This record gives sequence, structure tokens and C-alpha cells, in this order.
Amino acid sequence: MKIILNQTNSLIGDIKGNKEKIIAGYFDAINQGAELVIFPELALCGYPPLDLVEKKEFRNLVNQAAKEIASITLSVGIIFGSITEDYEDLIGTGVYNSALLCFDGKIQFIQNKTLLPNYDVFDEVRYFEPSKSVSVYEYKGTKLGISICEDIWNDADYWKKRRYPTDPIQDLVNKGAELIINISASPYAYGKRMERYEMLSLLAKIDNIQLVYCCCAGAQTDLIFDGASMCFDNNGNLLRLGKSFAEDVIIFDTEAEYEPLTEIEKSFPEEVLSALIFGLRDYRLKTGFKKALIGLSGGIDSAIVTYIAAEAFGKENIHVVMMPSKYSSEGSIKDSEALIHNLGISSDLVSIQPVFDSILSQLRTPFKERKPDVTEENMQSRIRGLYLMAYSNKFGYLLCTTGNKSEIATGYATLYGDMAGALAVIGDLYKTQVYEVCNFINRGKEIIPQNIIDKAPSAELRPDQKDQDSLPPYDQLDRVLKMYLEEQKEIKEIIDLVKDEEMVKRTLRLVDLNEFKRKQGAPVLRVSTKAFGYGRRFPIVNGWKRY
Amino acid sequence: MKIILNQTNSLIGDIKGNKEKIIAGYFDAINQGAELVIFPELALCGYPPLDLVEKKEFRNLVNQAAKEIASITLSVGIIFGSITEDYEDLIGTGVYNSALLCFDGKIQFIQNKTLLPNYDVFDEVRYFEPSKSVSVYEYKGTKLGISICEDIWNDADYWKKRRYPTDPIQDLVNKGAELIINISASPYAYGKRMERYEMLSLLAKIDNIQLVYCCCAGAQTDLIFDGASMCFDNNGNLLRLGKSFAEDVIIFDTEAEYEPLTEIEKSFPEEVLSALIFGLRDYRLKTGFKKALIGLSGGIDSAIVTYIAAEAFGKENIHVVMMPSKYSSEGSIKDSEALIHNLGISSDLVSIQPVFDSILSQLRTPFKERKPDVTEENMQSRIRGLYLMAYSNKFGYLLCTTGNKSEIATGYATLYGDMAGALAVIGDLYKTQVYEVCNFINRGKEIIPQNIIDKAPSAELRPDQKDQDSLPPYDQLDRVLKMYLEEQKEIKEIIDLVKDEEMVKRTLRLVDLNEFKRKQGAPVLRVSTKAFGYGRRFPIVNGWKRY
Repeated sequence: MKIILNQTNSLIGDIKGNKEKIIAGYFDAINQGAELVIFPELALCGYPPLDLVEKKEFRNLVNQAAKEIASITLSVGIIFGSITEDYEDLIGTGVYNSALLCFDGKIQFIQNKTLLPNYDVFDEVRYFEPSKSVSVYEYKGTKLGISICEDIWNDADYWKKRRYPTDPIQDLVNKGAELIINISASPYAYGKRMERYEMLSLLAKIDNIQLVYCCCAGAQTDLIFDGASMCFDNNGNLLRLGKSFAEDVIIFDTEAEYEPLTEIEKSFPEEVLSALIFGLRDYRLKTGFKKALIGLSGGIDSAIVTYIAAEAFGKENIHVVMMPSKYSSEGSIKDSEALIHNLGISSDLVSIQPVFDSILSQLRTPFKERKPDVTEENMQSRIRGLYLMAYSNKFGYLLCTTGNKSEIATGYATLYGDMAGALAVIGDLYKTQVYEVCNFINRGKEIIPQNIIDKAPSAELRPDQKDQDSLPPYDQLDRVLKMYLEEQKEIKEIIDLVKDEEMVKRTLRLVDLNEFKRKQGAPVLRVSTKAFGYGRRFPIVNGWKRY
Repeated sequence: MKIILNQTNSLIGDIKGNKEKIIAGYFDAINQGAELVIFPELALCGYPPLDLVEKKEFRNLVNQAAKEIASITLSVGIIFGSITEDYEDLIGTGVYNSALLCFDGKIQFIQNKTLLPNYDVFDEVRYFEPSKSVSVYEYKGTKLGISICEDIWNDADYWKKRRYPTDPIQDLVNKGAELIINISASPYAYGKRMERYEMLSLLAKIDNIQLVYCCCAGAQTDLIFDGASMCFDNNGNLLRLGKSFAEDVIIFDTEAEYEPLTEIEKSFPEEVLSALIFGLRDYRLKTGFKKALIGLSGGIDSAIVTYIAAEAFGKENIHVVMMPSKYSSEGSIKDSEALIHNLGISSDLVSIQPVFDSILSQLRTPFKERKPDVTEENMQSRIRGLYLMAYSNKFGYLLCTTGNKSEIATGYATLYGDMAGALAVIGDLYKTQVYEVCNFINRGKEIIPQNIIDKAPSAELRPDQKDQDSLPPYDQLDRVLKMYLEEQKEIKEIIDLVKDEEMVKRTLRLVDLNEFKRKQGAPVLRVSTKAFGYGRRFPIVNGWKRY
């Protein structure tokens, strides 16, 4: 059977646009000789639709669009993700996350999702009821086992600890499925594609079954979906692999011969750089921003964000503003100008000093007798935030936030100052990872000026300030942060590994204390298994203290 | 049986403090002759503990503390909420939201929660497994049916549409329970206490059973728990009612005679005013802030927030800053001064004009040829935000955000400007409700100057600006917002009711467009059934448009 997978990029809520994309993809596939055409999970409404699902009007329009798609189908089958409803017993939400198989002008078969993820960034139990059973559907002589995303993530052979008591894939195999189809919306994190590959390969091999996995490609605010759809033979060989970070059409003939593929994931810096460019570009395309704005400090974070923005928007659509104060080093301007030259972008230089002086003068009386402290440092950062937001308001720029994960974690950032912006482009990269990606960017020639990479990081908010005056060295800090945030290690384990109790306690205390800042932070493009945002939920008022 | 209910206020994560409070309450109750002592849901770790539950170290300490409580018990039983674990089958989280009954130095009985709420502000499926069954426990000759919060919210007689297929309360009744005990953490919304009363009363009556409902009292950042524990006889009469918005100890003798109580809820303004004062006071107590700061504009929103803050912090701990520009009316300062006088609080007056002029001068070159627009309006708001944050940084004030729900809904507020602050005190009150509460505050004598109530609302960011130049009249706006946000009405229904299609579409468009601002807004004290915050989750990048 000739199957064509469409790893499409839906816009959440744009039912009409998504429907048209599905219909166009369906007929294109038929023109290419497809016998079965597959689209991702919830392709019709976009994933994750969040509380839109609670709107009856939204569900009605999704249902109507699904029927319209079904009505134009010919004899070639199409499988796509949509929402269905069943209010028979007046219990529960009555709403399902479903795969619809349509041909000959009708919805012929519906398989609802059995396993509803409700951890990290997922809230599916909030909206959907689980399917109580799965069925095999015989299509053109082949028994299809149709499943949706999480349904395939509960394999007893692969997982030591399983999340759910049921395994819909095993049920489908036991019911005689000959081809497992999984439609998916699986958010990107570095390493996850390899994990998907290993899990799916093992499953195909152990169950001796062909497997087709179709995942969407696109970014939805903070979540990036990398596509990379996969087709396996019944020995677990990967025969077809969709593009990463792009829409793609993948042709898979279940009877043809293919050379097994082995290159699944590229290096960390190459992967996440592609992910972030894709994430920011899709934010631009889906929100309609034409131009982006970055406050250029002369440091490495704003430099890499400017590079990413130039890739995502085109260099002609990037504007940067340098905003020195009397604490700014001469090198900062020189380094920024070198970057501006290398990227070929437009720039302004506007001092914050007169405004800073004016504020200090206005507040001299109420602040009398108090020595300068972090207040005056934050003030400078907030004047810069104010300038940038003024540019954004005046010219319609998208303001890119430049904070990295180490800063956001420890609160080494000013709320309403350098934290201002629509999207935290590198908010899921630790400082050491920022260096790694910068070095990758410079692999062919120097794009990020080497001096920006080499100099000691500084916020330049007081004389001779260095990050390392306030924070542990970044290599040590990032190691602790990763253990705490991503690996969920306990404080005792971390101290045992790092052998610096004071530093570990200080770091963990900073992370916990700064929840209030993160609550008001910009959405963070997610490239790790645990990013700041919806996937991580801690109380602000919190008496949990282990330091 | 003499039962003593402790409607306690736990601090999330403060296991030691909560444990000590439970132990102290237990022995106090014994001294008062209690035969059974009851504490709320998850009293030992606080509710909602969110992702703290995912920390093994956290669960271990909770378990250890639960055992410590059990170990000091005498023959009098104690029931309290805690986390338990069972990893036997290696499937699921293995973690339960449980009620522990302890006496004679041991945990004697555990009932896990069956129904896990996962809607609005609730995410319990993220953390907990549901109990598969319920058991009656015979304690001192009485068959107890112990349940936890949501377990009691699925009554077939009360709800037209039920959320869950099982009903643990009916199971307990069928198994011979003679007294239903429900330990709870039920977040406050106006009207919900009456709803609880009606539901529980009906249940007690129809099942002909006594019912004891013990709810926590306290605020956890945005969520307010009002307490108001209830004891019913088997005719559904309410015999005992705990205090609202305060900890309380309620003595209920199941064999004594009581006069049925009928006053459940006070008027809307009286209730929500109490709720907001309680919410802000508890934020103060739990975070350790000693003093609060408000930017006083001369308008009604900052006036009411200042009043609430003075009640929550004490007038001697309130500082306000008036920050006029050349667009500020003379009346604004006069009205603010009258309020400052009425409340007896300290104040500063600092003009923003020199700083505003300095910024305009700095940006004149880059902004050349562009006419003043919303940029310059936002600038003024952001200078005020910057001043206030400087005060907060310099003196350690808690900055109270003053935006109301109508403004937050429509985005009629400046991100990083008037939206700055730690807690949005009246962010769940529509503008018309703000007036209602102000009039209630003034019922005995004029506290909020009448002129502040009477004058037309204005942001005073350009000459002769009035809110009503940009927004529909507030009575109409609020009506539409309430239908859209709380009542989840569809656009068509709203237009049919309001008969102003243009206004409705414009309003809904503003609500949907401003999701990005709310994402970065301060937590909102919740007093309605649908507040902005965790309970309402919409995508920022969103193609859903009905206007």
C-alpha cells in the first residue's frame, strides 16, 4: 500500500485554514498515487487547543469542518486528527481526541485516543475522555491499527515504569492489526527524536509489525513540534524519515524496498539552533509580526538571539538598539557594532544615562540617605525595557527576550526590564549551552564576534560588575540546575555529586525564590524535557525550603 | 460523638509548620472533650502543592510527618489530609491524595480520593492516582464514610450532568456508612458557599445521613479558601457553620440538639471585600512582606486597592505614591489626598514629567516624523511602573497591582506599566463590581472620596482622555465579559441578548487578542468561578477568530 504522510503545520483555532490545508494535501497525495493519506493528531484544530475545546461553538465548527473533509473524499482513505463528541451518558466531558478515517464521501471509522497525557506540558484529561476500547479496521485488505500519540508511549518492553494500566497498541496487535498507524503531536526536546526512534523501532520489531508515525511540524507559542515522521518495517528498521523542523510529505510504500536509515538526530547545537529558528519563525508567521527588535548589550545572549532572529525574520527585518549607560564598557559598543556589521542589520544607539539621571534626581528626596543598591541596577534594566517597548509600540516590532535558562532559573534578571518581550528565544538554554551554540554558529566563519564569546559575562549595571560576583561559575551552576530542574534530583544527591553544599543550597534557594518572576516572564521556546512555563508548575507562596 | 473540626490554614510546602499546627489542634480538641478531630484535605502539605508532589524528597518528608502525627495519637481519632504512595504495580504515579485516620499511635485507616478534579484551577490527575474503591470504617461504634473534596461533588440527585461515572459517596452509603465525613480544599468564588450548602444539604437529606464537611481557610497566592465548614443532620439541616475567611475550630456533637442555620452567604460586596482582604493578608503573612505600596492615580481602582491593603497590612504599613504628569487633572491629586487623609496612610508625590520629557528627547531622533500615539501613553504608565518597582526594591514594599477584570480582559492596561506588581488584588472584579464594593465600603461613612466614585474613569495619559473613548460603557462591557468569560456563552447568544453586534465582536476580539498580556500579568486573587490565571488556559498564538 502506498501511504503518504503529511506532517503539516496547523495554526491552533484556524479551523478553516487547517481544513483547506488538509484537503489540498489529500488531493496532492492522490495525484502522487497515494492509497492512504495521513495527517497528524488534531490537525484540524491545531495542538494543543487548550480551553478552546471547552467552547461549544469551537467544537461545532471543528465537527462541521471534519464532515466537510469527509464529504469530498474519493475512494482513497484519509486519516486525520480531530475532536469528536458523544454525550450519550451525560457523564464526563463527552469530548474525544480522535483519528477519523474517511473515504467515499463519509467518515468510515473513528478511533478515539485511549491514553491521555496529563503531565509536564500536557493537560488532556482536562478536556477529553479516554476511549474505552480500540478496534482494528480493515482497509483495502490491510488490518489497520490506528492510534493517537500517547497511545504508543506505554510499551511494556520499553518502559520500566509505565504510566497507564492499558496498552492500546498491544490490544490492536492482539486484535490482528497488520499495520500500526500513529498520528501524533509530540513536542520537541533535544534527545526526544532518538527516544521516539528507539521506542518505535523496538515496538515494530518485537510485535513484528509495520509502523507508520505521522507527527506535526510547527511551533505553537512555546511548544515546538519537529515533525520527523517515521516509517518502520516489521524488523524495526527505519525506512522513511520526514524532515525536522519543516512541513513535509513522506511517501511510504509498504511493499517497496528501502535502505534502513540511521541518522536520526544531529549534534546538540545544530539541533537546538534549528529548533529555535523554526520556533521564532513560526511565531512570526502565525502572529503576523514583520520585524523583530533586540536590545543589544554586547553580551553573548543578545548576540545569539539577534543571530536567531536574523535567520527567522531575514536580516532586513531586524533592528537592534544599543542602550549604554556610564557603566557600559567601550568594548560593549564595539562588539555590538561588529555583530551588526557581520549580520548586516540596522541599529540605533540611545543612551539611557540622561533618563537614569533624571529618575535618580526625581527619587532623590524620597530615597534620601539610602545608598545605591540593586534598585539602581534594576532601574537601568527597566529603562532599557521601556525604550524597547516604546520601539515595539511605535514601529510594531516583535521584542525578543534575551534571557537564558541559567538567568531565568536563578532570577538573575530584572522583571519588566531585560525580562520584557514577547518570546524568550533562548530561555531554555543554559549559559554554557549558549556558548556551545555560538561556537557552532561560528564553525565556518566568525559571525558572533569572538570577543563577545571570550569576555567575562557582565550585566554592566555597576562599575566592574561580573556575573560571577553574584553567581557560581556557569559550568558548575548549570550542572546543578540541570540536575535540579531536568533530572529532578534531590538536594542530597546533588550535594553528594557536586561536593559544594553551600553552592548547591544557594542555587536551589535562588531557583525556588524566583518563581514569582517566572510567573510574569515571557513564554520560553522549549527545547529540553523541562522548560520554564506550563510544563513546570510551582506555587509562588511556598514554604518548601531545603537550604 | 463529639467531633471537632479544625479548619486550618496550611502553608504549602511547610511540612513542619503544618504538622505542628495539626498536632496542637489535636491536643486542644482532646482538651475540649473531642472524640474525633478532623483537619482539611492535604492539610499536612498545603493545597494545591502542585509540582512539589513530583519531588520524592517532598513526598518522603510528608510521609514521615504523617507517621509522626500518628505516633503521638492517643485513643481519640484524628483525620487529616496527606499524600500516600503505593508503587506496587509500577503503573501510574503511585501517589494518592488521602485521608488518614489515626489513633492509638498508629495510622489505622487510609481512604484515598476517588474523584480527581482536573478542570479550571485543578490539575489533580497530573499528580495523583484515583482510588479504585472506598471502604467504611467503624470507629467507636459509628460507621464512618470518609471522603475527600471532589468525592462529594458528583451527586446524581444534584447534578444534571455529572463529571465522573462513579459516586464514592453512594458507595459509602450503600456500604452502611452512618456518618459521611468530607475533608476539603474548595477554592472560594462568590456563590459557591451557597452551592456547597445546597448540594450537601440535599445529599444528607436524600441519603438520610449525617454529614460533616471540613474545609481549609487560607489563601495560596491567587486561590482563596474560605473555610465555612459545615455539619448537617440527616434531614439536611445545617447545624454548625465555621467562620468564613478565618481559621476556626467547630465543635459538633452528633447527638446534641442545634437550631438550624440559614445565613450562609452575605451580600456580594461584603463577601468579596472580606475575601480580598483575607487573600492579601494571607499573602503578606506567608511571604513575610511587612509593608505594601500602591500607585495612587486618583481613580477608583487604586483607591479600593489602597483601602483593601490598609485593612490587610494595617494603615501604618501602607505607602502610596502619586505620580502626576502634565495630563493629570488637578482633581486627581486632590482626590488622592482626601483618600490618604481618610485612611491615615503615608504618601509621596513624584512627578513623572521630567523623566517623560527626557525619554521623549532621547527617542526624538529614532522616532522622527512619527506622531504621538499609544507609545507615549504606555511610556507614562511604564515610568510609573518603574518608579513603583524602585520603591519596592529600595524599601521592600509589596507592590499591589490595581487593574480590574474589565481592564485585564480587554487589555486596557500597560504591560510592565500599571500591570506591574506582585498580586492583582481586584483583578477578578469587573469595573461595575468595583463600584459596588466601594459603595459598600462607604456604607457607614465616606472612606473612598465620593468624587473618586462619581467622576468618569480616565487613564489620564493624553489630554481629556476617558476610558469610554476606547471601551464600551462599563455596564454594557461587563455584561458581555461576564457572559463570555464566566458563562461561556457563544458569540451568537451574546449578540442575541445584547443586540449590539459591533460592540460584542469588538469586546470579544479584545479579550482574545490580549492573551499575551495576561500571560505576563500578576497572579489574580480569585473570587469568581472563572478568573484569569491557571484556571483559564488559552493559546497565545491563536487563529480562533469570530469577529
